[in-house]
Amino acid sequence: MLHITLLGSGGGMPIPTRFLSSLLINYQGRKILIDCGEGTQVAMRKMNTGFKSIDIICLTHLHGDHIFGLPGLLTTMGNSERREPITIIGTEGTSEVVKGLMRSTPYLPFDLAIIENPNKALAIMNSAGGLQVKEYDKSQSHEIIISTIELEHSSPCLGYAFHIARKPKFCMEKAALYKVPKEIWRRLQNKETVIHDDKIYEPDMVLGEERSGIKISFITDTRPIETIPAFIMGSDLLICEGTYGDNEDIEKAKKNKHMTFKEAAELAKVGNVKEVLLTHFSSALDKPEIYKYNAEEIFNKTIIGYDGFTKTLSFK
Amino acid sequence: MLHITLLGSGGGMPIPTRFLSSLLINYQGRKILIDCGEGTQVAMRKMNTGFKSIDIICLTHLHGDHIFGLPGLLTTMGNSERREPITIIGTEGTSEVVKGLMRSTPYLPFDLAIIENPNKALAIMNSAGGLQVKEYDKSQSHEIIISTIELEHSSPCLGYAFHIARKPKFCMEKAALYKVPKEIWRRLQNKETVIHDDKIYEPDMVLGEERSGIKISFITDTRPIETIPAFIMGSDLLICEGTYGDNEDIEKAKKNKHMTFKEAAELAKVGNVKEVLLTHFSSALDKPEIYKYNAEEIFNKTIIGYDGFTKTLSFK
Repeated sequence: MLHITLLGSGGGMPIPTRFLSSLLINYQGRKILIDCGEGTQVAMRKMNTGFKSIDIICLTHLHGDHIFGLPGLLTTMGNSERREPITIIGTEGTSEVVKGLMRSTPYLPFDLAIIENPNKALAIMNSAGGLQVKEYDKSQSHEIIISTIELEHSSPCLGYAFHIARKPKFCMEKAALYKVPKEIWRRLQNKETVIHDDKIYEPDMVLGEERSGIKISFITDTRPIETIPAFIMGSDLLICEGTYGDNEDIEKAKKNKHMTFKEAAELAKVGNVKEVLLTHFSSALDKPEIYKYNAEEIFNKTIIGYDGFTKTLSFK
Repeated sequence: MLHITLLGSGGGMPIPTRFLSSLLINYQGRKILIDCGEGTQVAMRKMNTGFKSIDIICLTHLHGDHIFGLPGLLTTMGNSERREPITIIGTEGTSEVVKGLMRSTPYLPFDLAIIENPNKALAIMNSAGGLQVKEYDKSQSHEIIISTIELEHSSPCLGYAFHIARKPKFCMEKAALYKVPKEIWRRLQNKETVIHDDKIYEPDMVLGEERSGIKISFITDTRPIETIPAFIMGSDLLICEGTYGDNEDIEKAKKNKHMTFKEAAELAKVGNVKEVLLTHFSSALDKPEIYKYNAEEIFNKTIIGYDGFTKTLSFK
């Protein structure tokens, strides 16, 4: 189960009624932040999400409307007794830019690990020190898998997909057949091999059928390129930029490397997602909901995002 | 005449109800910004002050709550067809920090001139290209004179005083006595020596008594050191930090190198200012106005600042 909060639904310039691009994922009390536009820490206070337990920050790209909240947030976290390390994931150049943004805050009381342009999937485990990021290894069990895709924007830009794994079913019949002691059931179900009373017990001695987890994907800022549908395929929730509501703005969308609501809805449809949440509205788009029909004509399960929108996604 | 807008009255961490340290001075349609905490550009939009005509940005110091709005503001100005150069004034290290903050915005369509630690007064003239900053030269006339003072904070910090000069009175008797042609009166009153019909006319041929201008001073973040009263002496308006309202917070104020309302009021009194505007309230100070009496007991003309406070100062 995980809980998302759309902290900011604006793109480009900030306006008084809309914070800039930012989304918070809460997983078992620990947090992943995607993008951090100016004012993100204020949005967190306004929406009472907390900020001390953010372990991972995923940046789509290095344009100001997606990152200028970072120095303020990290400084505030430092002033709030945060001690556990934070991992920042982003495009090439992220390390240099973060270093620049933090130039006036020479000391942070926690480590910053920066992963640039991960071309392999990353795995996350929730341990005592918060969410830990490692290279994905399919022979091991992981709680969340993060994968990325190169998007098509005016600067290098990454899309993100998060897959929250669900443990396979526990098979009582197999456990009884192999006489597995009750006290090691949980460890085996977590795919651990256990030595107990001098006997070796394998996970397969208790595991039943695989069960699908939860997938959410985050696509901004980009044109609707052909690699996106496979990447977002089957997502329970696609969070997708819809910079322009009016279909007439298609030329602007092409020029500025963004999408219209209609184009985002087409991706959602071809990608066979369950629901799409539109966000990253142009500052000139005063009331995005009046263009909702442009998306709904293509894809019915469209939500027009707003600052403070929340949703809980659970295992089926 | 000039018009000020308090954009943000908060210090330390931003809170949803208060923007961070920032003040805008409007002089003949051109603007001087003092400090630029995160969210300053949003405050400008909310208060409809405009931002394209900011020519000078004075930074008190390089703590995040005074500067993290800078990259967003400068980027937005660049995206808004701003072309005239901007001068940033600050402590030593300002150039390095601004460069770092702008690392992700490699191109701005205007020049940035940075003046670090000016130990002499600076002079400002309003010309076609906006407010121009030069070294102060007492033999020339200037519209605004900026002077700075070293404050006592946990990092190097500058206080600012702005003196808006008023032209001396025009003396009709002298103009008649020296037979000064009417068409050159204005240039002479502006302290220009004029050659007209092969004769040299000096400003003293039309100038009467000197008239006092307008002085405003800006003091944050600091302890109330003994050099401040002379620096702020006679200000029409002192904008002064009052991080803590409760007199009981004096030990916190000493430790964190800030002031209580009472200490700020004592400065205002000894500095013989006309009025003091308190600002830079701690994020823990929910309702600053309930501590107003702590300042008023010392100095009656105290204003408790709030985001959006405006005041027009005119020549007497």
